[in-house]
Amino acid sequence: MATVTVYGPPLSTAVSRVLACLIEKDVDFKLVSVDMSKGQHKSPDFLKLQPFGQVPAFQDEHTSLFESRAICRYICDKYADRGQSLLGRKGGGPVERARIEQWLEAEGQSFNPPSSTLVFQLAFAPRMGLPQDPAAIELNEGKLGKVLDVYDRRLEESRFLAGDEFSLADLSHLPNGHYLTVAGKGEIFASRKNVARWWEEISTRPSWKKVVEMQNTPPAS
Amino acid sequence: MATVTVYGPPLSTAVSRVLACLIEKDVDFKLVSVDMSKGQHKSPDFLKLQPFGQVPAFQDEHTSLFESRAICRYICDKYADRGQSLLGRKGGGPVERARIEQWLEAEGQSFNPPSSTLVFQLAFAPRMGLPQDPAAIELNEGKLGKVLDVYDRRLEESRFLAGDEFSLADLSHLPNGHYLTVAGKGEIFASRKNVARWWEEISTRPSWKKVVEMQNTPPAS
Repeated sequence: MATVTVYGPPLSTAVSRVLACLIEKDVDFKLVSVDMSKGQHKSPDFLKLQPFGQVPAFQDEHTSLFESRAICRYICDKYADRGQSLLGRKGGGPVERARIEQWLEAEGQSFNPPSSTLVFQLAFAPRMGLPQDPAAIELNEGKLGKVLDVYDRRLEESRFLAGDEFSLADLSHLPNGHYLTVAGKGEIFASRKNVARWWEEISTRPSWKKVVEMQNTPPAS
Repeated sequence: MATVTVYGPPLSTAVSRVLACLIEKDVDFKLVSVDMSKGQHKSPDFLKLQPFGQVPAFQDEHTSLFESRAICRYICDKYADRGQSLLGRKGGGPVERARIEQWLEAEGQSFNPPSSTLVFQLAFAPRMGLPQDPAAIELNEGKLGKVLDVYDRRLEESRFLAGDEFSLADLSHLPNGHYLTVAGKGEIFASRKNVARWWEEISTRPSWKKVVEMQNTPPAS
């Protein structure tokens, strides 16, 4: 029986980050839907799990946690022996972990802000019947392009962002990157030779394909 | 002799985050100035250390690193036995670390975006002779206030964000928080009872006072 519970819809980028991590680590989990259109993420019970009223929230037999990247780190620490060693090998030492952490932070601080805005504008606003903001789209495409230029130089010398192994630093880009490609902006990856190769490799991993399948499966009623 | 080198001006919020961490961990370091007004952070040599052309960069006998929060985690992992245990006690296990990580991520993802914009608008734009954007200031004061409302509820039940001990999650708020108070916006902390107590306690730690002293000392010519 799964002792891990994730609260939130797989369509959420932050929820899908945690799901991809759990699948890579071969950890069973239960997904509990949170109907954000009904404001369930702002209910008093949910706020006990996630004080900001955001998704995901995470719970196991030891703790409850929020913030997708913190949850992923915990999963990697707790299940260090299982699945892909996403945060460095067990006993790999602080340097090995830090080389992953610096690119995971680059994702959170440099890739995420412009790509989140683009995902909202291009993927979520149309679904929610909200008008798009062409100036915000143009501005953030420019910002994201500059970030990906740095990635392209890095990925010329390295198979993955942190080195020869797929890590949490790569995985963390999948949720926003996926929506960008679905929204017809895949060119931002494809037009950069090394980013294109990297994106093709990480986005076709079986773990991520499973997450996309979950996103495309209507929730049980 | 210090084996740790930090590149960048202490006036930078990200540099000062790393300095506060090193002082808390009682680690000797050498600070190498990077004259950003002369574009030194975009020089080919510096880009080898920090591919995005930002500060700080970090170097010791084992590695070079970028991204202030990743550098801080590395310092905590490498010097686990020394100074304040900012990322959980050695052998404290994954839950203890994760409870800190979730609030460190809250800082990076929720507190940092609006507070960075405010710091730029209120502290740096005037120094650089740039016009301020009143709409951006108002918008981000509102966003930051909502984040601090969540903090105030958390700090009603807990001395520090992650529990009874000062941690990296608290420390990481000092650089932006400091500039907000210097720019006359201290009310955003002071008007919230528990946040006010917390801010007073963390911002008067000897480590942070030393960093502010470094910020106020003109660089040696």
